[in-house]
Amino acid sequence: MKLERNTLKQRMEQLLQEADEHDIELLDIFLGALERKRQPASHLPPSCLRDLLQYEEKLLDDGAYQITIPVTSVTQNIFGAVHGGIIATILDTTMGYVLNHELVPKGQGVVTTEMKVNYLLPGDGKHLRCVAQTVHRGRKLCVVEGKLYNDRDELIAIATGSFYIFTKR
Amino acid sequence: MKLERNTLKQRMEQLLQEADEHDIELLDIFLGALERKRQPASHLPPSCLRDLLQYEEKLLDDGAYQITIPVTSVTQNIFGAVHGGIIATILDTTMGYVLNHELVPKGQGVVTTEMKVNYLLPGDGKHLRCVAQTVHRGRKLCVVEGKLYNDRDELIAIATGSFYIFTKR
Amino acid sequence: MKLERNTLKQRMEQLLQEADEHDIELLDIFLGALERKRQPASHLPPSCLRDLLQYEEKLLDDGAYQITIPVTSVTQNIFGAVHGGIIATILDTTMGYVLNHELVPKGQGVVTTEMKVNYLLPGDGKHLRCVAQTVHRGRKLCVVEGKLYNDRDELIAIATGSFYIFTKR
Amino acid sequence: MKLERNTLKQRMEQLLQEADEHDIELLDIFLGALERKRQPASHLPPSCLRDLLQYEEKLLDDGAYQITIPVTSVTQNIFGAVHGGIIATILDTTMGYVLNHELVPKGQGVVTTEMKVNYLLPGDGKHLRCVAQTVHRGRKLCVVEGKLYNDRDELIAIATGSFYIFTKR
Repeated sequence: MKLERNTLKQRMEQLLQEADEHDIELLDIFLGALERKRQPASHLPPSCLRDLLQYEEKLLDDGAYQITIPVTSVTQNIFGAVHGGIIATILDTTMGYVLNHELVPKGQGVVTTEMKVNYLLPGDGKHLRCVAQTVHRGRKLCVVEGKLYNDRDELIAIATGSFYIFTKR
Repeated sequence: MKLERNTLKQRMEQLLQEADEHDIELLDIFLGALERKRQPASHLPPSCLRDLLQYEEKLLDDGAYQITIPVTSVTQNIFGAVHGGIIATILDTTMGYVLNHELVPKGQGVVTTEMKVNYLLPGDGKHLRCVAQTVHRGRKLCVVEGKLYNDRDELIAIATGSFYIFTKR
Repeated sequence: MKLERNTLKQRMEQLLQEADEHDIELLDIFLGALERKRQPASHLPPSCLRDLLQYEEKLLDDGAYQITIPVTSVTQNIFGAVHGGIIATILDTTMGYVLNHELVPKGQGVVTTEMKVNYLLPGDGKHLRCVAQTVHRGRKLCVVEGKLYNDRDELIAIATGSFYIFTKR
Repeated sequence: MKLERNTLKQRMEQLLQEADEHDIELLDIFLGALERKRQPASHLPPSCLRDLLQYEEKLLDDGAYQITIPVTSVTQNIFGAVHGGIIATILDTTMGYVLNHELVPKGQGVVTTEMKVNYLLPGDGKHLRCVAQTVHRGRKLCVVEGKLYNDRDELIAIATGSFYIFTKR
């Protein structure tokens, strides 16, 4: 373990010597994710993806849930736009969170059973903003809609998803 | 820039002192992603997600495409299973790759226009294996199926997606 | 052909003798569909499904399109609720019509390339009302949302669909 | 009721006088649907759609379920191809039936909670053949795949659907 730390330190130093601007940005995000994870105040279970994507969460007045993420080198695909998998991730997450916000106080949680995403425009700009709204809350199954906007408030993707309610032990 | 590098170095050293085993694993993956990105041999445009998820790619005999990823701390959600967004990412990617494999030699590429994922079982085990197969190749639109298996070869998610063909300039 | 007509007449008379109330309702709808089809005023190409389901169409102020259908014995599944296929049919049709309304004047039309329906509540009551709204109009692909309500204005199904634009010769 | 029957008879006679070949075909299908409905041997609850579409059902050796329907004037859309709603109907039905075949003997049934259809080719030819296969059978939710072929065995549509299991009282 001690040795491993030394190896990591050496690899890090090597990288720092060779790093271009893009690498520096990624390194900053990676270390930031680890620092966030170690914050003693955090009551949330660890989620590397959440830390890497740097969610900023907000409950809106109408009961919708909003997550905003910066567009960074982590989120980019090979064309320089936001990766479709990242778009699916933030839509899935925001849709799950709007339900969790309503259900966790009752000792319940949800898992995604299915999700469809329609990709409308390439994801670019400085940040993406996702808004999810509950469409139907059944006894066991819920349906949620999510919409994803770029920083010019253009709709770039929409999703609908089904979520199964489970009761926490 | 020089200063920034020094700051990153200090943050890294601080993290290494405090890191638990989980942090060490993440740091190893993060540095590995940056190292892969810098490999001179790589002919691929940078994709942080690909480097973080450590794709292992393979064209199968029947024309299907396979991507395998290790299950790591990067891929986990707050329940300890693979994040639904990661599952969507690898399905989207593998489905796109099977088409790219056929189309890139013709100077064409594809973008995902829609994708639906059905989540069947929690993603766990040592690795996930995704297999994508072209279902229909139209002049402008293609449809692909993807299946995701855990390391016991149980089906944990399926997807279908539509892809729009564009011609590279 | 003459003989065929006589056979049909005999079958019809036989049915009328044995018919229960449910059969009478169906017969009334079937004959109504044929009568609508023969109306000289109709400028629309024949669509048996449209005539059987008795669409009532309306362009709404916000550019959305609405189709209302009565709940009849034709629309019922074996549980006495509206058949999921009928729900898919009216959603697909209304989503296509909102685009056609915008595109037909330009000499264009659309075909559905994919559609997902989430079923929320059993379809019942006296009629179903479907409202479709264009979400994205690309050069070749459009995305539309549809919502289906019962006669108590409860949401019973939602859909999203992709439509490919073609130019009429 | 007596009067109503007389009115129906008169409308029928009027139609028969004016009917073109297309109307005759439809009338034959309509009366056939009513006759099937009245067959004393039928153990199935009434479903007008099933009778109009003339399902021919078959359990395949590998546990898949197959429904074949003739392409008729009832199934046509305004372009002369099979209506997307009919395609959704037969896919939904066949997917539900493969599950019912397994679950009804246990006193259970299913309802569709969501379905996505990808339309690949226009539906034409003499008949359509739909094959559905269970992908996952959970305790409460099942996922099924459906494939629809024309009479040249070309794939014209695929679907995936989720079904919720209920216990019959």
